Amino acid sequence: MECELTTLCYIEKDDQYLMLHRTKKKNDPSHDLWMGVGGHFEEGESPEDCVLREVYEETGLTLTDYKLRGVVSFSDNDWYEYMFLYSGYDFKGSVTVCSEGDLVWVDKEKSVTELPIWEGDKIFLKLMNEGKPFFSLKLHYENKVLRSVVLDGVKWTDEQIKSYL
Amino acid sequence: MECELTTLCYIEKDDQYLMLHRTKKKNDPSHDLWMGVGGHFEEGESPEDCVLREVYEETGLTLTDYKLRGVVSFSDNDWYEYMFLYSGYDFKGSVTVCSEGDLVWVDKEKSVTELPIWEGDKIFLKLMNEGKPFFSLKLHYENKVLRSVVLDGVKWTDEQIKSYL
Repeated sequence: MECELTTLCYIEKDDQYLMLHRTKKKNDPSHDLWMGVGGHFEEGESPEDCVLREVYEETGLTLTDYKLRGVVSFSDNDWYEYMFLYSGYDFKGSVTVCSEGDLVWVDKEKSVTELPIWEGDKIFLKLMNEGKPFFSLKLHYENKVLRSVVLDGVKWTDEQIKSYL
Repeated sequence: MECELTTLCYIEKDDQYLMLHRTKKKNDPSHDLWMGVGGHFEEGESPEDCVLREVYEETGLTLTDYKLRGVVSFSDNDWYEYMFLYSGYDFKGSVTVCSEGDLVWVDKEKSVTELPIWEGDKIFLKLMNEGKPFFSLKLHYENKVLRSVVLDGVKWTDEQIKSYL
């Protein structure tokens, strides 16, 4: 099975996340949406290798304290992606200009409630904000609309999904 | 990057692991070695989907209590594999005949010290037996010989590696 392997990191400081407003990259499926920073694995990288490199490339920051919060299995029609989801708790350096969009510190709460983000991202951000221990989240989309959610092997009802969106 | 995604599960009971002696599969790189049960992701599967299906297919058992213990990033020359490593704590059903080899309950300790297993497997089995919380382990082989070990982003010295083999 061919698949995509990625990392995504929500760097936090003073109850804010460093969010990327994806405005600059061409043909970006997430164009104009907001999310953390990260990207695809390069050959031979472990999840840590990838997240440290991507955070440095996109923000100029070097993570000095970070944690794997969960694994997210995405599907949408014939597309599959497995994403390692990190929190970044401490770092060295200063935020630089990102070639993929604008980096902005946003209140954690507002990042979920006020910014245009993917539906599934609302779910894992809320799980992270609730302090949930390591989780495995399966998100199935159809044409970019969230259709099903399975958390740690248990399928959510439509009511559960709605309560998180 | 093309890569392989797999699961491996060590089902335990009474201080023993259900080990698979890989004797039956043709062209098996692990021929005659011992390990837990598992296999490759099928399209659209989450790690849980994969481990539950593989355990059922290979052992006839249905896991009722299991936990993701770590992620292992393997490389050997041009081959890359990412493996989700599970402990299986409880199950329903009875062990059946496996088409890939012989299933044998083996004392946890002996599974590491007495059976022919991959060098890197000794490392993660000892980490599991020590009760280490969720870990990310990067194992680099060259022609099936273990060359480097990185645990949670920290590279091991040769002395550390030897102490685990």
